[in-house]
Amino acid sequence: MAGNTFGKIFRVTTWGESHGPALGAVIDGCPPRLLLAAADIDEALARRRPGVQTHATSRREPDRVEILSGVFEGLTTGTPISLIIYNRDVRSRDYEEFREIFRPGHGDFTYQAKYGIRDHRGGGRASARETAARVAAGAVAQKILDTQDIHVVAFTVEFGGVRAQRVEEATMWNNPFACPDPEAVPAMAARVMEVQAQGDSLGGIVEVRVHGCPPGLGEPVFDKLDAALAHALMSVGAVKGVEIGSGFAAARLLGSENNDPMGPQGFASNQAGGILAGLSNSDDIVIKAAVKPIPSISQEQDTIDVHGQARKLRVKGRHDVSAIPRIVPVLEAMVRLTLADFLLRQRTIA
Amino acid sequence: MAGNTFGKIFRVTTWGESHGPALGAVIDGCPPRLLLAAADIDEALARRRPGVQTHATSRREPDRVEILSGVFEGLTTGTPISLIIYNRDVRSRDYEEFREIFRPGHGDFTYQAKYGIRDHRGGGRASARETAARVAAGAVAQKILDTQDIHVVAFTVEFGGVRAQRVEEATMWNNPFACPDPEAVPAMAARVMEVQAQGDSLGGIVEVRVHGCPPGLGEPVFDKLDAALAHALMSVGAVKGVEIGSGFAAARLLGSENNDPMGPQGFASNQAGGILAGLSNSDDIVIKAAVKPIPSISQEQDTIDVHGQARKLRVKGRHDVSAIPRIVPVLEAMVRLTLADFLLRQRTIA
Amino acid sequence: MAGNTFGKIFRVTTWGESHGPALGAVIDGCPPRLLLAAADIDEALARRRPGVQTHATSRREPDRVEILSGVFEGLTTGTPISLIIYNRDVRSRDYEEFREIFRPGHGDFTYQAKYGIRDHRGGGRASARETAARVAAGAVAQKILDTQDIHVVAFTVEFGGVRAQRVEEATMWNNPFACPDPEAVPAMAARVMEVQAQGDSLGGIVEVRVHGCPPGLGEPVFDKLDAALAHALMSVGAVKGVEIGSGFAAARLLGSENNDPMGPQGFASNQAGGILAGLSNSDDIVIKAAVKPIPSISQEQDTIDVHGQARKLRVKGRHDVSAIPRIVPVLEAMVRLTLADFLLRQRTIA
Amino acid sequence: MAGNTFGKIFRVTTWGESHGPALGAVIDGCPPRLLLAAADIDEALARRRPGVQTHATSRREPDRVEILSGVFEGLTTGTPISLIIYNRDVRSRDYEEFREIFRPGHGDFTYQAKYGIRDHRGGGRASARETAARVAAGAVAQKILDTQDIHVVAFTVEFGGVRAQRVEEATMWNNPFACPDPEAVPAMAARVMEVQAQGDSLGGIVEVRVHGCPPGLGEPVFDKLDAALAHALMSVGAVKGVEIGSGFAAARLLGSENNDPMGPQGFASNQAGGILAGLSNSDDIVIKAAVKPIPSISQEQDTIDVHGQARKLRVKGRHDVSAIPRIVPVLEAMVRLTLADFLLRQRTIA
Repeated sequence: MAGNTFGKIFRVTTWGESHGPALGAVIDGCPPRLLLAAADIDEALARRRPGVQTHATSRREPDRVEILSGVFEGLTTGTPISLIIYNRDVRSRDYEEFREIFRPGHGDFTYQAKYGIRDHRGGGRASARETAARVAAGAVAQKILDTQDIHVVAFTVEFGGVRAQRVEEATMWNNPFACPDPEAVPAMAARVMEVQAQGDSLGGIVEVRVHGCPPGLGEPVFDKLDAALAHALMSVGAVKGVEIGSGFAAARLLGSENNDPMGPQGFASNQAGGILAGLSNSDDIVIKAAVKPIPSISQEQDTIDVHGQARKLRVKGRHDVSAIPRIVPVLEAMVRLTLADFLLRQRTIA
Repeated sequence: MAGNTFGKIFRVTTWGESHGPALGAVIDGCPPRLLLAAADIDEALARRRPGVQTHATSRREPDRVEILSGVFEGLTTGTPISLIIYNRDVRSRDYEEFREIFRPGHGDFTYQAKYGIRDHRGGGRASARETAARVAAGAVAQKILDTQDIHVVAFTVEFGGVRAQRVEEATMWNNPFACPDPEAVPAMAARVMEVQAQGDSLGGIVEVRVHGCPPGLGEPVFDKLDAALAHALMSVGAVKGVEIGSGFAAARLLGSENNDPMGPQGFASNQAGGILAGLSNSDDIVIKAAVKPIPSISQEQDTIDVHGQARKLRVKGRHDVSAIPRIVPVLEAMVRLTLADFLLRQRTIA
Repeated sequence: MAGNTFGKIFRVTTWGESHGPALGAVIDGCPPRLLLAAADIDEALARRRPGVQTHATSRREPDRVEILSGVFEGLTTGTPISLIIYNRDVRSRDYEEFREIFRPGHGDFTYQAKYGIRDHRGGGRASARETAARVAAGAVAQKILDTQDIHVVAFTVEFGGVRAQRVEEATMWNNPFACPDPEAVPAMAARVMEVQAQGDSLGGIVEVRVHGCPPGLGEPVFDKLDAALAHALMSVGAVKGVEIGSGFAAARLLGSENNDPMGPQGFASNQAGGILAGLSNSDDIVIKAAVKPIPSISQEQDTIDVHGQARKLRVKGRHDVSAIPRIVPVLEAMVRLTLADFLLRQRTIA
Repeated sequence: MAGNTFGKIFRVTTWGESHGPALGAVIDGCPPRLLLAAADIDEALARRRPGVQTHATSRREPDRVEILSGVFEGLTTGTPISLIIYNRDVRSRDYEEFREIFRPGHGDFTYQAKYGIRDHRGGGRASARETAARVAAGAVAQKILDTQDIHVVAFTVEFGGVRAQRVEEATMWNNPFACPDPEAVPAMAARVMEVQAQGDSLGGIVEVRVHGCPPGLGEPVFDKLDAALAHALMSVGAVKGVEIGSGFAAARLLGSENNDPMGPQGFASNQAGGILAGLSNSDDIVIKAAVKPIPSISQEQDTIDVHGQARKLRVKGRHDVSAIPRIVPVLEAMVRLTLADFLLRQRTIA
């Protein structure tokens, strides 16, 4: 049973391979009478584009979405919204080598094991290119969140070992790391130069914050809001860990430190990260995702080919130094998709 | 839309409140002709029971499951397996105070916000008592894993700040912390004494390892195996963070360090934690879960009542110092449920 | 992937075999704060009990439900409602013969083919006994319909070839056929006597009517309301055909005859059976289900055993002459479950 | 919760409106390594095209599908298959009148009631045009059925009151009614001339037969194969009734007549229509669907406008006299989708 659909009520099904003619998403379950235009989505896609820095992907995709259905005279109709983004600038020959050789850290080996066949070009379905469809769908989800004044923002709190010490929301997209601390940017840039020269790659930690979420979202016992958010973020290729609120630090705290005292004005602290017993508590939701260094590196690596023979591999061609910053709007989108779905789920009992 | 069902093919629906007459699970989608007896399940439940130590729950539940359907002459029939566990030793009067007062760190406030009603006795549906049904279902899931020689084991790698330095599988259940390092046990015991005297509580980190998982399990793009495992573990009340393989440490590694080189004999390392691009890679699956300190503490805390008025609360009555070790078999069970489901999902394309 | 769950938002999972210790249903997704007592459900179950007539089942089941969860101080809480009905008066030895022989018209052969194992006692999971759980769940669904003043009623419009000529709702449960035309009752009774003497069985046609359904329920394109209702009714064992509104007669009408003219006061006719393009149109919903004669007959029949050998079979022991009237409240229940689910589904876009 | 997805394992989501730029389907859950080309699908679409007769639709759609994903070098890869069919020959101005007026027998009124908005052009999402996506998906489903030599065929057994007396599979597509009895064709043609002159429309009955289905497909208790097939066929706009095997006639038969005797060589009759207790029994599956006359007629009809005012309407422009024969391949496709899904579902327990 396949897994290309996300959500229970607000359901997003993505499709498409890195080097196919197009990719897209079908959204079923979007409420009617919401204003929606392709430009709203293009704006979200633009944030996923490579920046001007050297570490950014060399593939230039002026991604533009077309809305093929579900919108009539500028309003959603309640019927499926089909979004399509054409692939351009596709150079499949760059990938001919990977037809036979499994790249370390990529899904080449596991896709072959699972399906007995794979589109080896650019990672095929496993390519980060697929996340463009998620970002597009996330822009539609935000239309639902807008009706409740729910604000979602993601940013980089650590990159290549350099930590942001403070959060200035206004400036975080003024640098190529989505870093909310302008003073940390130079060290991050230096780290990129250094690692790029070695033909290596970097990871980091992204934080997503949600402001304005009403209390009570989430579904006990298995579909707790934090469980669903962890699922959402971990479904993004490079993510290897997820924390809610105090996260792993909670393991070392005492109960008296980790409990958030309540008062008539709300919670006195937010160790919980805005979620109690799997339900939103009206405080800000705070989640962190660990992003691994991208596996495509120029250094020589040991690997095997489809016949199980030992091979040496040096990944050539275009590749980024890090999934950051492109992954930042993707994680934001996944949180949007999750919240839109839980808002609609909540309506069924209200 | 409610969330009391886990899995897509091997579907487990749990029901029951802490102080109701019983709790249970219905499993739909279990393949036929597997040997199954109540004793198999009781054995799993026994590991969830409190130990002899003072930190263990004072509630004595000689949990025994009854199989009400789906098994005929010792074999599963392919029809729903209904499991029931009766609640005994229920003292609801202990909880009368919580009808009006929200306990910090518990779901009292959020359940009230979500449903406009809640069973306040012992946490109602939000009680850790619900996890008995998960453990019971996990024992059934293991019957499917047994057919593939898949072995799941969980243990405590950190407790109250004390780390286990090595893993001896044989001895981990010889101590009240499910700790695989016998030498770390005395320090853990000392920590319990100390914290219990303060009326406080402790958290820790639990690791789950899976041996023998075939490659290719998992479903791109949203139902990646790691995403599903994160969902599974985070759906357990006290869990605040999940890591796969190198987890958060991956954020600080270089690509050349984090990639696992491949050779004809397999992977040279296991930073990936057994999962590549969301699919199992045949190596051991390694997951860690951060467990927060349990919120019921004897110290006085600030909170509010159902009318929004400030109140002081000191949680009396029976409560553990930590969710560990009782949560350990629960996390094991969640991994079993996940893997059984993905094994059956994989059959649909094989 | 198993199929023991009905509904998408109001989800009912039934479990249990004819000769197991109990059967039941778990309802997930019932809104909170609805009044619910076991007595409400028992009342619905009572209508499913055999009547005083000879054609009625000889098995006496004073079915009583126990609510094991999801209700607190008389109100639903939004958590899963677990219902259990214990099996009594179970004489499994009557069925020993069927361990080896497949009964014609029953699921014995097909269950064996599907699962490679079956509980042969009383039809096991395929027994009409399972429908008790549906009726119980239907009584809970009605609580939701009550909030919208939606009224569901089913009755027999044809039995053993005898047609009811008019519908008197008040009197339909004063006779053992759920027949709304008192004048047709004697002919039906005579038909029973005649057929019973021959050791044979009878079928009939049941109509279900819904009054008060708001317009717009149903989900294009696959989950049209009529499609879901057809699914619901056809999922009851003995049903072999379903019609909405004019049904098969529509095939012979002209468009000008079959279209229902609209006016400011509503529709001038109801050929549509209350459903247009898969959505309720606010008129009464009218559905008919064809019920086959029950396959257990005393006459000798040709069949085979589990080894594929030809055998002669004469079904002894207790069995009814017809699924009518016991199937009538079951069909009513299935319509209730469907409508409750679609009411909640509609909320997600409203 | 929307309903644009069909199937549980082989999942088809259709999207698109009659007068949007395109329509399509995304298939998730198709097994890998099946040969698939656009030409296979175009061939199925061609059978849905209007014939040369006057009764056929005047809209000329040379439907051609594009496969946008999920196929690599001629083989399915196990990833989502995205199919797109562009709309051509779209004259939306013809429909301007229906922005304000509800057409009797159509979904105009109910869509407005449900969503508070609708695309009035050509029926929007409720248009029969949507079924092109089903036929396309059905051609993919057939690839799975081919691996088991399962053959699905549909034909017209009654049209405008004229019945086919015999079934000649070879000739059924040599006439514009998909009629398997060449001798009934002239009477059908005469009926069309007569009714068309009156500005009226016709219905009929379509039979679908499946040969080669293995025993045991279907899922007790709610997802019985006949329940799923009834759902599938009734989800096609014009269908008002469904019968399995003896269908409504079963209501008048005795048990001794309706039971199919079994022998070592199989069943002696097929009243069951190939399905026993909701599971296929290895005999041919036989289903009938009642097709109502299409509601668009040239005669003047009473209706209302969006303000609830009485209006007179005469539907001008292009419309067929009957949904037959175009609905025939659509019903075939729905059966294919259902069987492919149940074949894959069966694998999860085998």
